[in-house]
Amino acid sequence: MAERETVFRECLCVITGASRGLGKELALQLAPSLTGASSLVLVARSGERLEEVRRAVLASQPSLRVLLVPADLSTGQGVGAALAALPQHRPRRLLLLNNAGSLGDVSKFVVDFTSPAEITDYFSLNVTSFMCLSAGVLRAFPQKAGLTRTVVNISSLCAIKPFKSWSLYCMGKAAREMMCHVLAAEQPDLRVLSYAPGNSPHITIGRGVRVSTELQWGSEHQHKHDWERAGNGIRGKSSSGGVNFPIVWCVVP
Amino acid sequence: MAERETVFRECLCVITGASRGLGKELALQLAPSLTGASSLVLVARSGERLEEVRRAVLASQPSLRVLLVPADLSTGQGVGAALAALPQHRPRRLLLLNNAGSLGDVSKFVVDFTSPAEITDYFSLNVTSFMCLSAGVLRAFPQKAGLTRTVVNISSLCAIKPFKSWSLYCMGKAAREMMCHVLAAEQPDLRVLSYAPGNSPHITIGRGVRVSTELQWGSEHQHKHDWERAGNGIRGKSSSGGVNFPIVWCVVP
Repeated sequence: MAERETVFRECLCVITGASRGLGKELALQLAPSLTGASSLVLVARSGERLEEVRRAVLASQPSLRVLLVPADLSTGQGVGAALAALPQHRPRRLLLLNNAGSLGDVSKFVVDFTSPAEITDYFSLNVTSFMCLSAGVLRAFPQKAGLTRTVVNISSLCAIKPFKSWSLYCMGKAAREMMCHVLAAEQPDLRVLSYAPGNSPHITIGRGVRVSTELQWGSEHQHKHDWERAGNGIRGKSSSGGVNFPIVWCVVP
Repeated sequence: MAERETVFRECLCVITGASRGLGKELALQLAPSLTGASSLVLVARSGERLEEVRRAVLASQPSLRVLLVPADLSTGQGVGAALAALPQHRPRRLLLLNNAGSLGDVSKFVVDFTSPAEITDYFSLNVTSFMCLSAGVLRAFPQKAGLTRTVVNISSLCAIKPFKSWSLYCMGKAAREMMCHVLAAEQPDLRVLSYAPGNSPHITIGRGVRVSTELQWGSEHQHKHDWERAGNGIRGKSSSGGVNFPIVWCVVP
């Protein structure tokens, strides 16, 4: 991991899809920065894998409170379980990292999607749960003085660029991105970031560095501000399961 | 209605949400152009209102075969009913006008959408049925020599611009627009048009006339081509239920 310059005190951080891949990496890389009565809520279907992540997280940050939520976010019950697991204490910083998602059947073209159930299932996990979980977390911790709230949408170039046979993925990411734009417009206190990690391990983020168009932001207003601050964030790249992920974090005031 | 310069012979035209508003207007304005063994399939929930539209259509084009499908497109059964109603004969031109849709509860902000069922219902009508119906119609009439196929998505500025408290509408339109882009990439023979009628009755379309950014197209490749041809289409504005709709039609080769 690259140098770490930031400490998040009294932070409540929720990561979905946290048992592997980018979600796991976010947990591992953020953990050392989560200090002073911070909590980390990890959501994923596999309780077994979540336990592994917890062990790795505690190895680097033994004082961190780590809560595991083995739940299927494609169901209302799963979203409810994640919300029920939120700690009651008021954090100074709220970070929601919506990373959970699926690719859909990329062997199919649009004309092959004749089953409503398949499409509905896809949107349930990738859009509906994303919206309900974001809504629920933000309602649990409404705006108040001294609280900084950030919602991150793990996005993709597919949110803005169509790819053959990736229709569901492109549509879901486009809908998520639009929700972030609306959310940013509705909640002026909120930092909303749609971040597309891409598949290149070579992206690096630094102060004043212009980055690829794969990075999309929640509102134009926050654009320049976030860029300038990105240089102060956790940054670098790391490897998990043979896949390299560039990690950027937006530091909020 | 403005001057009509185009005749569609042996055309199968399917219009959803055809019982009122823009869908009804499209039916009424297209009917006089649908000649020579053409069929018009009108889909909407209200069979009673569809009968009224049929009467008005036949008044201007008595020879037109008009099929009514009273169906709720938010269900798989509704989509199935629309597909089952398609005539068996092979048309020379296929026009699918996906106009059906709903606004969603625009009194709610994103943080108010805590019910998965409400979101799922919204996407079922506005995205899933749109995708399944398009897929089903295109499968029923696959590409072949002498057949021109066009899919129209009635879109909105909300597909590309976020509006506070319009999250579901914006998300649905963004997802539909993205599906059109993917579809256009996947099916090179297909003309795909996402058209945002807007709320201004003053838009006029003509050869060489540059139009507002509310008009979005299925693929960049088709953009200029379609613009040039738009001047040959049915155009004008008409009034229905006190609402003025600008009508533009894209003439395909």
